[in-house]
Amino acid sequence: MSAARLPAFPFQVEAVDGAARAGSLHTPRGRVQTPCFMPVGTKGTVKAMPPARLRAIGAGIILANTYHLALRPGSETVAALGGLHRFMGWDGPILTDSGGFQVFSLKDTAVIDEEGVTFRSIYDGSKHTFTPERAMAEQRLLGADFIMCFDECPPAGASRDAVAAAVRRTEAWAARCREAHIEAGGAGTDGPQMLFGIVQGGVHEDLRRASVEGLVALDFPGYAIGGLSVGEERGATLETTEFTAALLPRDRPRYFMGIGDPAGLLDAIERGIDLFDCVLPTRIARMGTAFTAEGRLNLRNAEHARSTAPLEPDCPCLACTSFTRGALRHFVMQKEILGLQLLSDHNLVHLFRLVEGARRAILEGRFGSYKRTREAQSR
Amino acid sequence: MSAARLPAFPFQVEAVDGAARAGSLHTPRGRVQTPCFMPVGTKGTVKAMPPARLRAIGAGIILANTYHLALRPGSETVAALGGLHRFMGWDGPILTDSGGFQVFSLKDTAVIDEEGVTFRSIYDGSKHTFTPERAMAEQRLLGADFIMCFDECPPAGASRDAVAAAVRRTEAWAARCREAHIEAGGAGTDGPQMLFGIVQGGVHEDLRRASVEGLVALDFPGYAIGGLSVGEERGATLETTEFTAALLPRDRPRYFMGIGDPAGLLDAIERGIDLFDCVLPTRIARMGTAFTAEGRLNLRNAEHARSTAPLEPDCPCLACTSFTRGALRHFVMQKEILGLQLLSDHNLVHLFRLVEGARRAILEGRFGSYKRTREAQSR
Repeated sequence: MSAARLPAFPFQVEAVDGAARAGSLHTPRGRVQTPCFMPVGTKGTVKAMPPARLRAIGAGIILANTYHLALRPGSETVAALGGLHRFMGWDGPILTDSGGFQVFSLKDTAVIDEEGVTFRSIYDGSKHTFTPERAMAEQRLLGADFIMCFDECPPAGASRDAVAAAVRRTEAWAARCREAHIEAGGAGTDGPQMLFGIVQGGVHEDLRRASVEGLVALDFPGYAIGGLSVGEERGATLETTEFTAALLPRDRPRYFMGIGDPAGLLDAIERGIDLFDCVLPTRIARMGTAFTAEGRLNLRNAEHARSTAPLEPDCPCLACTSFTRGALRHFVMQKEILGLQLLSDHNLVHLFRLVEGARRAILEGRFGSYKRTREAQSR
Repeated sequence: MSAARLPAFPFQVEAVDGAARAGSLHTPRGRVQTPCFMPVGTKGTVKAMPPARLRAIGAGIILANTYHLALRPGSETVAALGGLHRFMGWDGPILTDSGGFQVFSLKDTAVIDEEGVTFRSIYDGSKHTFTPERAMAEQRLLGADFIMCFDECPPAGASRDAVAAAVRRTEAWAARCREAHIEAGGAGTDGPQMLFGIVQGGVHEDLRRASVEGLVALDFPGYAIGGLSVGEERGATLETTEFTAALLPRDRPRYFMGIGDPAGLLDAIERGIDLFDCVLPTRIARMGTAFTAEGRLNLRNAEHARSTAPLEPDCPCLACTSFTRGALRHFVMQKEILGLQLLSDHNLVHLFRLVEGARRAILEGRFGSYKRTREAQSR
């Protein structure tokens, strides 16, 4: 293992309230205030959200997906087009996942060995092998600011032995990712890249602890908690998150992979998570469902057909400032693109405001009451 | 026939250059500068275009469709939701067509008599009858600023006798629409409504003349030229437009129904048309085609895959200011919603700039050279 250090963007924890943290991550493309919800732009666009609008509503970091972009249009093509920032029309920070989660979840055909994973493309059935080195190379070509180690993410319900094997393999692969990244100078085609290690271990405390210890020995500048949004009970997820987050170095950002419901975000923040991502807000928007302080609202419900109320009072989003629930329902029922745009806008604005409120509350030492108030509203 | 006058918004012709006109239409919801291309919001939204963005790029009047809105969600529902402006989130002027064109074109099952047209809904097959009175009542409930007489629009290739019968029936129905509108006080649920007569007559000069004379005797505050975008040769369309426009009163706005390609707009403006609408710019956008000064550009073409050029240099639209052709092509190929948004934005910006340029040229007495320059670029 190389003794060289991985590039890191400065991260400061500005305030702690219980386990909850408010911080700042100083990237070459701007400061990101944490906690921060990161919208997902799977194929290079956060669905239905123009980048200028994402910026206007306060998006900090956005995600893109190495699996999808490596297959379509290809990482070489993204690089030829100027790299991911130019490709996505987004000059703020971007994070790419490594493709591991998709390789394991999108196809039953994945064959795994110590070297990596061989799978068939969901686009054309062609055969591909992702190794830790290949995942790093793809992410260098894409050129995001934050990149992820290639990990093995076992399915929910996997046996303890299978989870233990995934922990061992994830650690071995993390060492290889680290090595490859250092060999490449710690940078992609578009500047320095901060590499996160991914903690696995399912809901087993000893395996999570082993995973953390293995990764921390490799001294990653940031750590992600993976493998917890694949079907477990929320209670077990939160217990594991609490336990795992407490083991992680306090001076490094912590990223919970794949949580995006309002209650879940507050639960994760409470347990010391700084970053989260999920397709949920934009995905349910496309199905006609809106987040509100009182819980989820399904616009397909006929009761909204003649409602002149906004989705939420006092919400500054494009939907709430200009449209009645009745009109929004019509757009949803008629599958009008504007309906997808407006509900995606609303759900992201709702989450950003929720997380921004959490950050203020942490800075002011009142996160507990903030969380209880929001939870009481949604019950 | 009632001798009462129909409500009219002040219209001034500010400059004439050949037959081309630059004017202003002073509506209660703002001044509209003509010539003006009106984007079509069939079901209450200009597809993929948030109203705030339409405003920002210079949209004057937008259209909505009585046929579709009367069936889904129903004109009563739109009225209950505060009327069409609130429904669409658009506080500028709106024009609704009468539903005639859709009734005749969307279904083979339409049965026509002097009273009106009985047809089956494309949504659920239910039977409906639109009469001139019903078309006016629906448009009152919707509450647009500009409304259209219910007309008979014969298909391209209809016999001369069929076109002559349509002219007679359209005139009789126009008289009934006028009467119904005056009886209703000339206003809908959302303020005064300016009613346009629709000239029919196919490509037959004598029938067009008869249609104009019949309608002008009814003294409409504005006139539309209908029945010319249903499959004729462009040459015959332009000849008929030139002939018909010259017969119309100079002090009333003239609206050519259904033209939206850049060359066609300039041709229509040259012949004295003030207003036009068409789904074309947003429809071809959704198929991956962009207007450019050099002609149409199909992003599905593989040659664009690694192009770092914008769709058009110096275009201020969302697509051209932030995205390469290669990225746009990827969004189109992957059917990403953002691709639809960006190309719709581009095509409308392209048309608005073209028409704005035409207006300036008319005001400065150089429309002929403006048109020739634009035509030469696109060849």
